[in-house]
Amino acid sequence: MTKEKACDMRTGRISIRVRYSECDPMGVAHHTAYPVWFEMGRMELLRANDRSYRDYEAAGVFLAVVALEVRYKKPALYDDLLELESVVSKIGHVKITHEYALRRNGKLLATGKTTLACLDREGKLCPVPDSLRA
Amino acid sequence: MTKEKACDMRTGRISIRVRYSECDPMGVAHHTAYPVWFEMGRMELLRANDRSYRDYEAAGVFLAVVALEVRYKKPALYDDLLELESVVSKIGHVKITHEYALRRNGKLLATGKTTLACLDREGKLCPVPDSLRA
Amino acid sequence: MTKEKACDMRTGRISIRVRYSECDPMGVAHHTAYPVWFEMGRMELLRANDRSYRDYEAAGVFLAVVALEVRYKKPALYDDLLELESVVSKIGHVKITHEYALRRNGKLLATGKTTLACLDREGKLCPVPDSLRA
Amino acid sequence: MTKEKACDMRTGRISIRVRYSECDPMGVAHHTAYPVWFEMGRMELLRANDRSYRDYEAAGVFLAVVALEVRYKKPALYDDLLELESVVSKIGHVKITHEYALRRNGKLLATGKTTLACLDREGKLCPVPDSLRA
Repeated sequence: MTKEKACDMRTGRISIRVRYSECDPMGVAHHTAYPVWFEMGRMELLRANDRSYRDYEAAGVFLAVVALEVRYKKPALYDDLLELESVVSKIGHVKITHEYALRRNGKLLATGKTTLACLDREGKLCPVPDSLRA
Repeated sequence: MTKEKACDMRTGRISIRVRYSECDPMGVAHHTAYPVWFEMGRMELLRANDRSYRDYEAAGVFLAVVALEVRYKKPALYDDLLELESVVSKIGHVKITHEYALRRNGKLLATGKTTLACLDREGKLCPVPDSLRA
Repeated sequence: MTKEKACDMRTGRISIRVRYSECDPMGVAHHTAYPVWFEMGRMELLRANDRSYRDYEAAGVFLAVVALEVRYKKPALYDDLLELESVVSKIGHVKITHEYALRRNGKLLATGKTTLACLDREGKLCPVPDSLRA
Repeated sequence: MTKEKACDMRTGRISIRVRYSECDPMGVAHHTAYPVWFEMGRMELLRANDRSYRDYEAAGVFLAVVALEVRYKKPALYDDLLELESVVSKIGHVKITHEYALRRNGKLLATGKTTLACLDREGKLCPVPDSLRA
Protein backbone atom coordinates (compact mmCIF):
# COMPACT_ATOMS: atom_id res chain seq x y z
CA MET A 1 0.00 0.00 0.00
CA THR A 2 1.49 3.36 -0.97
CA LYS A 3 1.79 6.24 1.47
CA GLU A 4 -1.08 8.08 -0.24
CA LYS A 5 -3.33 5.04 0.17
CA ALA A 6 -2.51 4.77 3.85
CA CYS A 7 -3.81 8.31 4.25
CA ASP A 8 -7.15 7.37 2.77
CA MET A 9 -8.97 5.71 5.66
CA ARG A 10 -11.94 4.79 3.50
CA THR A 11 -10.13 2.69 0.90
CA GLY A 12 -8.63 -0.72 1.50
CA ARG A 13 -6.77 -3.21 -0.67
CA ILE A 14 -6.35 -6.93 -0.18
CA SER A 15 -4.95 -9.77 -2.28
CA ILE A 16 -7.03 -12.89 -2.82
CA ARG A 17 -5.83 -16.24 -4.12
CA VAL A 18 -8.78 -17.99 -5.84
CA ARG A 19 -9.42 -21.30 -4.06
CA TYR A 20 -10.10 -24.53 -5.93
CA SER A 21 -13.25 -25.00 -3.87
CA GLU A 22 -14.51 -21.60 -5.07
CA CYS A 23 -14.45 -22.67 -8.73
CA ASP A 24 -17.23 -24.38 -10.64
CA PRO A 25 -17.47 -26.77 -13.60
CA MET A 26 -16.84 -23.85 -16.00
CA GLY A 27 -13.38 -23.72 -14.38
CA VAL A 28 -13.94 -20.20 -13.07
CA ALA A 29 -14.76 -18.74 -9.67
CA HIS A 30 -18.45 -19.27 -8.94
CA HIS A 31 -20.36 -15.97 -8.88
CA THR A 32 -21.14 -16.39 -5.17
CA ALA A 33 -17.43 -16.26 -4.29
CA TYR A 34 -17.30 -12.54 -5.12
CA PRO A 35 -19.54 -11.31 -2.29
CA VAL A 36 -17.51 -13.48 0.11
CA TRP A 37 -14.40 -11.59 -1.06
CA PHE A 38 -16.20 -8.25 -0.72
CA GLU A 39 -16.98 -9.16 2.90
CA MET A 40 -13.30 -9.90 3.48
CA GLY A 41 -12.41 -6.60 1.86
CA ARG A 42 -14.62 -4.49 4.12
CA MET A 43 -13.48 -6.37 7.22
CA GLU A 44 -9.82 -5.82 6.37
CA LEU A 45 -10.66 -2.15 5.73
CA LEU A 46 -11.92 -2.00 9.32
CA ARG A 47 -8.75 -3.69 10.55
CA ALA A 48 -6.60 -1.23 8.59
CA ASN A 49 -8.36 1.43 10.65
CA ASP A 50 -7.51 -0.40 13.89
CA ARG A 51 -11.02 -1.71 14.30
CA SER A 52 -12.34 -5.24 14.17
CA TYR A 53 -15.80 -6.41 13.20
CA ARG A 54 -15.43 -9.11 15.88
CA ASP A 55 -15.28 -6.38 18.51
CA TYR A 56 -18.39 -4.67 17.14
CA GLU A 57 -20.39 -7.90 17.37
CA ALA A 58 -19.05 -8.48 20.89
CA ALA A 59 -20.29 -4.98 21.76
CA GLY A 60 -23.73 -5.73 20.30
CA VAL A 61 -23.41 -3.91 16.97
CA PHE A 62 -24.20 -6.04 13.91
CA LEU A 63 -23.75 -4.99 10.30
CA ALA A 64 -26.21 -6.92 8.14
CA VAL A 65 -26.11 -6.86 4.35
CA VAL A 66 -29.41 -5.45 3.06
CA ALA A 67 -28.46 -4.93 -0.58
CA LEU A 68 -25.90 -6.48 -2.92
CA GLU A 69 -25.00 -5.74 -6.51
CA VAL A 70 -22.28 -7.36 -8.59
CA ARG A 71 -21.27 -6.80 -12.23
CA TYR A 72 -19.11 -9.63 -13.61
CA LYS A 73 -16.97 -8.52 -16.54
CA LYS A 74 -14.20 -11.13 -16.93
CA PRO A 75 -13.98 -14.49 -15.16
CA ALA A 76 -11.56 -15.07 -12.27
CA LEU A 77 -9.79 -18.41 -12.67
CA TYR A 78 -8.63 -20.97 -10.15
CA ASP A 79 -5.29 -19.99 -8.57
CA ASP A 80 -5.49 -16.41 -9.85
CA LEU A 81 -4.04 -13.79 -7.54
CA LEU A 82 -6.58 -10.97 -7.43
CA GLU A 83 -6.53 -7.45 -6.02
CA LEU A 84 -9.67 -6.19 -4.33
CA GLU A 85 -10.24 -2.50 -3.64
CA SER A 86 -12.98 -1.67 -1.13
CA VAL A 87 -14.24 1.85 -0.55
CA VAL A 88 -16.75 3.27 1.93
CA SER A 89 -18.80 5.35 -0.48
CA LYS A 90 -21.55 6.54 1.86
CA ILE A 91 -22.38 6.54 5.56
CA GLY A 92 -25.98 7.36 6.43
CA HIS A 93 -27.77 7.42 9.78
CA VAL A 94 -28.20 3.64 10.02
CA LYS A 95 -26.57 2.35 6.82
CA ILE A 96 -23.14 2.10 5.22
CA THR A 97 -22.47 1.65 1.51
CA HIS A 98 -19.27 0.08 0.18
CA GLU A 99 -18.12 -0.19 -3.42
CA TYR A 100 -15.66 -2.75 -4.73
CA ALA A 101 -13.37 -3.24 -7.73
CA LEU A 102 -11.77 -6.63 -8.34
CA ARG A 103 -8.74 -6.77 -10.62
CA ARG A 104 -6.13 -9.24 -11.91
CA ASN A 105 -2.87 -7.62 -13.00
CA GLY A 106 -4.65 -4.30 -13.09
CA LYS A 107 -7.44 -5.51 -15.39
CA LEU A 108 -10.95 -5.01 -14.00
CA LEU A 109 -12.81 -8.34 -13.53
CA ALA A 110 -15.83 -7.22 -11.51
CA THR A 111 -17.38 -4.37 -9.57
CA GLY A 112 -19.75 -4.54 -6.64
CA LYS A 113 -21.72 -2.57 -4.11
CA THR A 114 -23.17 -3.51 -0.74
CA THR A 115 -25.40 -1.71 1.73
CA LEU A 116 -25.09 -2.69 5.36
CA ALA A 117 -27.67 -1.87 8.01
CA CYS A 118 -26.59 -1.36 11.57
CA LEU A 119 -28.54 -3.61 13.95
CA ASP A 120 -28.63 -4.14 17.70
CA ARG A 121 -28.84 -7.52 19.45
CA GLU A 122 -32.60 -7.64 18.88
CA GLY A 123 -32.15 -7.05 15.17
CA LYS A 124 -33.51 -3.48 15.36
CA LEU A 125 -32.00 -0.72 13.24
CA CYS A 126 -29.63 1.48 15.23
CA PRO A 127 -27.37 4.45 14.40
CA VAL A 128 -23.98 3.75 12.84
CA PRO A 129 -21.43 4.09 15.72
CA ASP A 130 -19.25 7.19 15.60
CA SER A 131 -16.15 5.00 15.52
CA LEU A 132 -17.25 3.75 12.09
CA ARG A 133 -17.65 7.30 10.82
CA ALA A 134 -14.20 8.50 11.78
CA MET B 1 -47.81 -26.81 -8.49
CA THR B 2 -51.34 -25.91 -9.55
CA LYS B 3 -52.61 -26.26 -13.08
CA GLU B 4 -52.42 -22.49 -13.57
CA LYS B 5 -48.78 -22.55 -12.56
CA ALA B 6 -47.96 -25.41 -14.90
CA CYS B 7 -49.35 -23.30 -17.75
CA ASP B 8 -46.89 -20.52 -17.02
CA MET B 9 -43.65 -21.85 -18.48
CA ARG B 10 -41.65 -18.88 -17.27
CA THR B 11 -42.37 -19.14 -13.55
CA GLY B 12 -41.05 -21.84 -11.24
CA ARG B 13 -41.42 -22.53 -7.54
CA ILE B 14 -39.18 -24.58 -5.29
CA SER B 15 -38.95 -25.19 -1.55
CA ILE B 16 -35.66 -24.69 0.25
CA ARG B 17 -34.73 -25.90 3.72
CA VAL B 18 -32.07 -23.55 5.16
CA ARG B 19 -28.95 -25.61 5.92
CA TYR B 20 -26.96 -25.17 9.12
CA SER B 21 -23.82 -24.69 7.05
CA GLU B 22 -25.49 -21.78 5.25
CA CYS B 23 -25.96 -19.82 8.48
CA ASP B 24 -23.51 -17.43 10.07
CA PRO B 25 -22.70 -16.25 13.60
CA MET B 26 -25.76 -13.94 13.52
CA GLY B 27 -27.76 -17.19 13.38
CA VAL B 28 -29.24 -16.32 9.99
CA ALA B 29 -28.56 -17.47 6.45
CA HIS B 30 -25.41 -15.78 5.15
CA HIS B 31 -26.17 -13.32 2.35
CA THR B 32 -24.21 -15.42 -0.15
CA ALA B 33 -26.65 -18.35 0.29
CA TYR B 34 -29.39 -16.45 -1.54
CA PRO B 35 -27.73 -16.38 -4.99
CA VAL B 36 -27.03 -20.12 -4.58
CA TRP B 37 -30.77 -20.62 -4.07
CA PHE B 38 -31.57 -18.39 -7.06
CA GLU B 39 -29.33 -20.63 -9.19
CA MET B 40 -31.26 -23.67 -7.95
CA GLY B 41 -34.51 -21.90 -8.77
CA ARG B 42 -33.63 -21.16 -12.38
CA MET B 43 -32.26 -24.66 -12.92
CA GLU B 44 -35.45 -26.25 -11.59
CA LEU B 45 -37.41 -23.87 -13.82
CA LEU B 46 -35.53 -25.38 -16.77
CA ARG B 47 -36.30 -28.88 -15.53
CA ALA B 48 -39.99 -28.02 -15.15
CA ASN B 49 -39.82 -27.23 -18.87
CA ASP B 50 -38.24 -30.62 -19.62
CA ARG B 51 -34.82 -29.14 -20.12
CA SER B 52 -31.66 -29.57 -18.09
CA TYR B 53 -28.78 -27.16 -17.71
CA ARG B 54 -26.47 -30.20 -17.64
CA ASP B 55 -27.53 -30.99 -21.22
CA TYR B 56 -26.87 -27.41 -22.34
CA GLU B 57 -23.32 -27.53 -20.99
CA ALA B 58 -22.81 -30.94 -22.60
CA ALA B 59 -23.91 -29.34 -25.88
CA GLY B 60 -21.48 -26.46 -25.46
CA VAL B 61 -23.88 -23.76 -24.25
CA PHE B 62 -22.90 -22.06 -20.99
CA LEU B 63 -24.99 -19.54 -19.07
CA ALA B 64 -22.69 -17.28 -17.08
CA VAL B 65 -23.95 -14.82 -14.47
CA VAL B 66 -22.95 -11.30 -15.55
CA ALA B 67 -25.07 -9.32 -13.09
CA LEU B 68 -26.57 -10.02 -9.70
CA GLU B 69 -28.79 -7.94 -7.44
CA VAL B 70 -30.29 -8.93 -4.10
CA ARG B 71 -32.46 -6.98 -1.66
CA TYR B 72 -32.59 -8.55 1.80
CA LYS B 73 -35.72 -7.55 3.74
CA LYS B 74 -36.08 -10.10 6.56
CA PRO B 75 -33.54 -12.72 7.65
CA ALA B 76 -33.98 -16.39 6.78
CA LEU B 77 -33.19 -18.57 9.80
CA TYR B 78 -31.57 -21.97 10.12
CA ASP B 79 -34.06 -24.77 9.41
CA ASP B 80 -36.64 -22.42 7.85
CA LEU B 81 -38.62 -23.87 4.97
CA LEU B 82 -38.61 -21.20 2.26
CA GLU B 83 -40.49 -20.80 -1.00
CA LEU B 84 -38.58 -19.41 -3.95
CA GLU B 85 -40.33 -18.08 -7.04
CA SER B 86 -38.18 -17.65 -10.14
CA VAL B 87 -39.39 -15.86 -13.25
CA VAL B 88 -37.78 -15.33 -16.65
CA SER B 89 -38.43 -11.62 -17.01
CA LYS B 90 -36.55 -10.92 -20.24
CA ILE B 91 -34.83 -12.86 -23.03
CA GLY B 92 -32.58 -10.79 -25.27
CA HIS B 93 -30.34 -11.82 -28.15
CA VAL B 94 -27.51 -13.15 -25.95
CA LYS B 95 -28.81 -12.58 -22.40
CA ILE B 96 -31.55 -13.85 -20.10
CA THR B 97 -32.88 -12.01 -17.05
CA HIS B 98 -34.50 -13.79 -14.13
CA GLU B 99 -36.24 -12.25 -11.12
CA TYR B 100 -36.73 -13.96 -7.79
CA ALA B 101 -38.92 -13.67 -4.71
CA LEU B 102 -38.06 -15.59 -1.56
CA ARG B 103 -40.79 -16.08 1.04
CA ARG B 104 -41.42 -17.85 4.34
CA ASN B 105 -45.09 -18.63 5.00
CA GLY B 106 -46.00 -16.13 2.32
CA LYS B 107 -43.96 -13.29 3.85
CA LEU B 108 -41.40 -11.75 1.52
CA LEU B 109 -37.82 -12.15 2.80
CA ALA B 110 -35.80 -11.11 -0.24
CA THR B 111 -35.96 -10.29 -3.92
CA GLY B 112 -33.30 -10.78 -6.54
CA LYS B 113 -32.39 -10.40 -10.18
CA THR B 114 -29.74 -12.06 -12.30
CA THR B 115 -28.58 -11.55 -15.87
CA LEU B 116 -27.05 -14.54 -17.62
CA ALA B 117 -24.97 -14.29 -20.78
CA CYS B 118 -24.97 -17.17 -23.22
CA LEU B 119 -21.41 -18.34 -23.96
CA ASP B 120 -19.86 -20.98 -26.20
CA ARG B 121 -17.00 -23.32 -25.22
CA GLU B 122 -14.47 -20.56 -25.91
CA GLY B 123 -16.30 -18.15 -23.63
CA LYS B 124 -17.57 -16.03 -26.54
CA LEU B 125 -21.06 -14.55 -26.44
CA CYS B 126 -23.54 -16.54 -28.54
CA PRO B 127 -27.28 -16.27 -29.22
CA VAL B 128 -29.69 -17.70 -26.67
CA PRO B 129 -30.81 -21.10 -28.08
CA ASP B 130 -34.39 -21.23 -29.38
CA SER B 131 -35.17 -24.03 -26.94
CA LEU B 132 -34.63 -21.53 -24.10
CA ARG B 133 -37.04 -19.06 -25.69
CA ALA B 134 -39.95 -21.48 -26.08
CA MET C 1 -39.93 -44.10 3.19
CA THR C 2 -41.39 -47.58 3.55
CA LYS C 3 -43.23 -48.72 6.65
CA GLU C 4 -40.27 -50.87 7.67
CA LYS C 5 -37.99 -47.84 7.50
CA ALA C 6 -40.35 -45.74 9.58
CA CYS C 7 -40.04 -48.37 12.31
CA ASP C 8 -36.29 -47.93 12.50
CA MET C 9 -35.86 -44.72 14.48
CA ARG C 10 -32.10 -44.68 14.01
CA THR C 11 -31.97 -44.73 10.23
CA GLY C 12 -32.98 -41.87 7.97
CA ARG C 13 -33.03 -41.38 4.23
CA ILE C 14 -33.01 -38.14 2.26
CA SER C 15 -32.66 -37.22 -1.41
CA ILE C 16 -30.09 -34.66 -2.48
CA ARG C 17 -29.89 -32.86 -5.80
CA VAL C 18 -26.24 -31.89 -6.44
CA ARG C 19 -26.04 -28.11 -6.78
CA TYR C 20 -23.97 -26.42 -9.48
CA SER C 21 -22.25 -24.34 -6.79
CA GLU C 22 -21.15 -27.57 -5.07
CA CYS C 23 -19.20 -28.75 -8.12
CA ASP C 24 -15.59 -27.97 -8.94
CA PRO C 25 -13.50 -27.63 -12.11
CA MET C 26 -13.32 -31.45 -12.39
CA GLY C 27 -17.09 -31.23 -12.98
CA VAL C 28 -17.85 -33.28 -9.86
CA ALA C 29 -19.11 -32.42 -6.40
CA HIS C 30 -16.25 -30.97 -4.35
CA HIS C 31 -15.22 -33.27 -1.52
CA THR C 32 -16.35 -30.74 1.09
CA ALA C 33 -19.97 -30.99 -0.11
CA TYR C 34 -20.28 -34.50 1.35
CA PRO C 35 -20.00 -33.54 5.04
CA VAL C 36 -22.57 -30.78 4.39
CA TRP C 37 -24.94 -33.48 3.12
CA PHE C 38 -24.15 -35.71 6.10
CA GLU C 39 -25.16 -32.84 8.38
CA MET C 40 -28.44 -32.51 6.49
CA GLY C 41 -28.95 -36.27 6.82
CA ARG C 42 -28.56 -36.34 10.59
CA MET C 43 -30.78 -33.28 11.04
CA GLU C 44 -33.55 -34.81 8.95
CA LEU C 45 -33.14 -38.01 10.98
CA LEU C 46 -33.89 -35.91 14.09
CA ARG C 47 -36.92 -34.38 12.36
CA ALA C 48 -38.17 -37.84 11.35
CA ASN C 49 -38.17 -38.55 15.09
CA ASP C 50 -40.20 -35.40 15.78
CA ARG C 51 -37.21 -33.52 17.08
CA SER C 52 -35.41 -30.49 15.69
CA TYR C 53 -31.80 -29.50 16.13
CA ARG C 54 -32.99 -25.88 16.21
CA ASP C 55 -34.91 -26.64 19.41
CA TYR C 56 -31.87 -28.28 21.01
CA GLU C 57 -29.74 -25.19 20.36
CA ALA C 58 -32.53 -22.98 21.70
CA ALA C 59 -32.50 -25.13 24.85
CA GLY C 60 -28.73 -24.76 25.19
CA VAL C 61 -27.63 -28.15 23.83
CA PHE C 62 -25.08 -28.00 21.02
CA LEU C 63 -23.81 -30.95 18.99
CA ALA C 64 -20.32 -30.17 17.71
CA VAL C 65 -18.51 -32.34 15.18
CA VAL C 66 -15.30 -33.65 16.78
CA ALA C 67 -14.37 -36.27 14.19
CA LEU C 68 -15.11 -36.75 10.50
CA GLU C 69 -14.20 -39.50 8.08
CA VAL C 70 -15.18 -39.81 4.43
CA ARG C 71 -14.32 -42.45 1.84
CA TYR C 72 -14.98 -41.30 -1.73
CA LYS C 73 -15.52 -44.22 -4.13
CA LYS C 74 -17.24 -42.76 -7.21
CA PRO C 75 -17.75 -39.07 -8.04
CA ALA C 76 -21.16 -37.40 -7.67
CA LEU C 77 -21.90 -35.20 -10.67
CA TYR C 78 -23.70 -31.90 -11.03
CA ASP C 79 -27.50 -32.38 -11.09
CA ASP C 80 -27.30 -35.99 -9.84
CA LEU C 81 -30.13 -37.05 -7.58
CA LEU C 82 -28.49 -38.86 -4.66
CA GLU C 83 -29.85 -40.95 -1.80
CA LEU C 84 -28.24 -40.50 1.60
CA GLU C 85 -28.72 -43.02 4.39
CA SER C 86 -27.80 -41.83 7.89
CA VAL C 87 -27.61 -44.16 10.87
CA VAL C 88 -26.95 -43.50 14.55
CA SER C 89 -24.37 -46.20 15.15
CA LYS C 90 -23.40 -45.40 18.73
CA ILE C 91 -24.55 -43.18 21.59
CA GLY C 92 -22.07 -42.77 24.42
CA HIS C 93 -22.25 -40.65 27.57
CA VAL C 94 -21.35 -37.37 25.85
CA LYS C 95 -20.90 -38.38 22.19
CA ILE C 96 -22.99 -39.64 19.28
CA THR C 97 -21.62 -41.47 16.24
CA HIS C 98 -23.40 -41.47 12.87
CA GLU C 99 -22.52 -43.45 9.77
CA TYR C 100 -23.53 -42.53 6.25
CA ALA C 101 -23.90 -44.17 2.86
CA LEU C 102 -24.37 -42.03 -0.25
CA ARG C 103 -25.76 -43.70 -3.37
CA ARG C 104 -26.92 -42.85 -6.89
CA ASN C 105 -29.42 -45.31 -8.34
CA GLY C 106 -28.41 -47.78 -5.67
CA LYS C 107 -24.70 -47.58 -6.47
CA LEU C 108 -22.50 -46.63 -3.51
CA LEU C 109 -20.60 -43.36 -4.11
CA ALA C 110 -19.23 -42.64 -0.64
CA THR C 111 -19.37 -43.62 3.01
CA GLY C 112 -18.80 -41.45 6.04
CA LYS C 113 -18.72 -41.29 9.79
CA THR C 114 -19.02 -38.41 12.22
CA THR C 115 -18.66 -38.13 15.97
CA LEU C 116 -20.59 -35.34 17.68
CA ALA C 117 -19.86 -34.12 21.18
CA CYS C 118 -22.66 -32.72 23.27
CA LEU C 119 -21.80 -29.22 24.57
CA ASP C 120 -23.53 -26.70 26.79
CA ARG C 121 -23.67 -22.92 26.18
CA GLU C 122 -20.17 -22.52 27.62
CA GLY C 123 -18.79 -25.15 25.26
CA LYS C 124 -18.32 -27.69 28.08
CA LEU C 125 -19.01 -31.38 27.45
CA CYS C 126 -22.40 -32.47 28.80
CA PRO C 127 -24.38 -35.72 28.77
CA VAL C 128 -26.37 -36.59 25.66
CA PRO C 129 -30.02 -35.69 26.48
CA ASP C 130 -32.35 -38.66 27.04
CA SER C 131 -34.58 -37.43 24.22
CA LEU C 132 -31.72 -38.15 21.81
CA ARG C 133 -31.34 -41.68 23.12
CA ALA C 134 -34.96 -42.71 22.69
CA MET D 1 9.59 -20.13 7.33
CA THR D 2 12.90 -20.99 8.96
CA LYS D 3 15.92 -22.11 6.97
CA GLU D 4 15.46 -25.69 8.19
CA LYS D 5 11.88 -25.66 7.01
CA ALA D 6 12.81 -24.37 3.58
CA CYS D 7 15.04 -27.42 3.25
CA ASP D 8 12.16 -29.77 3.88
CA MET D 9 10.36 -29.93 0.56
CA ARG D 10 7.55 -32.02 1.98
CA THR D 11 6.33 -29.62 4.67
CA GLY D 12 4.51 -26.36 4.03
CA ARG D 13 3.07 -23.65 6.25
CA ILE D 14 0.38 -21.11 5.48
CA SER D 15 -1.58 -18.57 7.49
CA ILE D 16 -5.36 -18.52 7.31
CA ARG D 17 -7.69 -15.76 8.47
CA VAL D 18 -11.05 -17.32 9.39
CA ARG D 19 -13.75 -15.76 7.20
CA TYR D 20 -17.11 -14.66 8.56
CA SER D 21 -18.83 -16.74 5.87
CA GLU D 22 -16.99 -19.82 7.16
CA CYS D 23 -18.53 -19.52 10.62
CA ASP D 24 -21.82 -21.00 11.77
CA PRO D 25 -24.47 -20.12 14.37
CA MET D 26 -22.22 -21.52 17.13
CA GLY D 27 -19.89 -18.63 16.23
CA VAL D 28 -17.09 -20.97 15.22
CA ALA D 29 -15.71 -22.13 11.90
CA HIS D 30 -18.01 -24.77 10.40
CA HIS D 31 -16.38 -28.19 10.30
CA THR D 32 -16.43 -28.21 6.48
CA ALA D 33 -14.09 -25.19 6.37
CA TYR D 34 -11.17 -27.30 7.58
CA PRO D 35 -10.85 -29.55 4.51
CA VAL D 36 -11.02 -26.40 2.35
CA TRP D 37 -8.01 -25.07 4.28
CA PHE D 38 -6.21 -28.42 3.94
CA GLU D 39 -6.68 -28.15 0.17
CA MET D 40 -5.15 -24.67 0.26
CA GLY D 41 -2.28 -26.03 2.34
CA ARG D 42 -1.33 -28.79 -0.07
CA MET D 43 -1.63 -26.48 -3.07
CA GLU D 44 0.66 -23.90 -1.47
CA LEU D 45 3.05 -26.75 -0.64
CA LEU D 46 3.19 -27.50 -4.38
CA ARG D 47 3.80 -23.82 -5.11
CA ALA D 48 6.59 -23.69 -2.53
CA ASN D 49 8.19 -26.43 -4.62
CA ASP D 50 7.82 -24.37 -7.80
CA ARG D 51 4.91 -26.42 -9.02
CA SER D 52 1.28 -25.49 -9.52
CA TYR D 53 -1.77 -27.73 -9.37
CA ARG D 54 -3.25 -25.60 -12.18
CA ASP D 55 -0.42 -26.78 -14.45
CA TYR D 56 -1.02 -30.43 -13.54
CA GLU D 57 -4.69 -30.18 -14.48
CA ALA D 58 -3.74 -28.40 -17.71
CA ALA D 59 -1.42 -31.34 -18.44
CA GLY D 60 -4.20 -33.85 -17.76
CA VAL D 61 -3.20 -34.94 -14.26
CA PHE D 62 -5.95 -34.68 -11.65
CA LEU D 63 -5.56 -35.29 -7.92
CA ALA D 64 -8.90 -36.41 -6.49
CA VAL D 65 -9.56 -36.74 -2.77
CA VAL D 66 -10.48 -40.36 -2.03
CA ALA D 67 -10.23 -40.26 1.75
CA LEU D 68 -10.54 -37.54 4.39
CA GLU D 69 -10.15 -37.60 8.14
CA VAL D 70 -10.38 -34.67 10.54
CA ARG D 71 -10.09 -34.53 14.32
CA TYR D 72 -11.45 -31.30 15.82
CA LYS D 73 -9.93 -30.50 19.21
CA LYS D 74 -10.61 -26.80 19.84
CA PRO D 75 -12.88 -24.49 17.83
CA ALA D 76 -11.47 -21.91 15.42
CA LEU D 77 -13.27 -18.59 15.81
CA TYR D 78 -14.23 -15.93 13.32
CA ASP D 79 -11.30 -13.62 12.53
CA ASP D 80 -8.73 -15.97 14.10
CA LEU D 81 -5.37 -16.06 12.39
CA LEU D 82 -4.45 -19.73 12.08
CA GLU D 83 -1.28 -21.55 11.08
CA LEU D 84 -1.66 -24.66 8.95
CA GLU D 85 1.15 -27.17 8.54
CA SER D 86 0.81 -29.62 5.65
CA VAL D 87 3.11 -32.62 5.19
CA VAL D 88 3.36 -35.21 2.43
CA SER D 89 3.47 -38.32 4.60
CA LYS D 90 3.37 -41.00 1.90
CA ILE D 91 3.63 -41.28 -1.87
CA GLY D 92 2.49 -44.59 -3.34
CA HIS D 93 2.23 -45.72 -6.95
CA VAL D 94 -1.05 -43.90 -7.65
CA LYS D 95 -1.83 -42.15 -4.34
CA ILE D 96 -0.46 -39.38 -2.14
CA THR D 97 -1.17 -38.97 1.56
CA HIS D 98 -0.96 -35.61 3.33
CA GLU D 99 -1.24 -34.88 7.03
CA TYR D 100 -2.22 -31.55 8.54
CA ALA D 101 -1.96 -29.71 11.83
CA LEU D 102 -3.95 -26.53 12.42
CA ARG D 103 -2.85 -24.22 15.21
CA ARG D 104 -3.66 -20.83 16.73
CA ASN D 105 -0.79 -19.21 18.57
CA GLY D 106 0.92 -22.59 18.65
CA LYS D 107 -2.04 -24.39 20.24
CA LEU D 108 -3.29 -27.37 18.26
CA LEU D 109 -6.91 -26.94 17.09
CA ALA D 110 -7.29 -29.81 14.65
CA THR D 111 -5.43 -32.52 12.75
CA GLY D 112 -6.30 -34.04 9.41
CA LYS D 113 -5.29 -36.51 6.77
CA THR D 114 -6.20 -36.81 3.10
CA THR D 115 -5.48 -39.40 0.45
CA LEU D 116 -5.40 -38.20 -3.14
CA ALA D 117 -5.63 -40.52 -6.14
CA CYS D 118 -3.92 -39.55 -9.36
CA LEU D 119 -6.37 -39.60 -12.28
CA ASP D 120 -6.10 -38.98 -16.02
CA ARG D 121 -8.62 -37.02 -18.11
CA GLU D 122 -10.90 -40.07 -18.31
CA GLY D 123 -10.88 -40.43 -14.53
CA LYS D 124 -8.73 -43.57 -14.63
CA LEU D 125 -6.05 -44.13 -11.99
CA CYS D 126 -2.58 -43.26 -13.22
CA PRO D 127 0.91 -43.23 -11.67
CA VAL D 128 1.90 -40.24 -9.56
CA PRO D 129 4.13 -38.07 -11.83
CA ASP D 130 7.84 -38.10 -10.98
CA SER D 131 7.76 -34.33 -10.52
CA LEU D 132 5.46 -34.86 -7.52
CA ARG D 133 7.89 -37.33 -5.98
CA ALA D 134 10.93 -35.12 -6.16
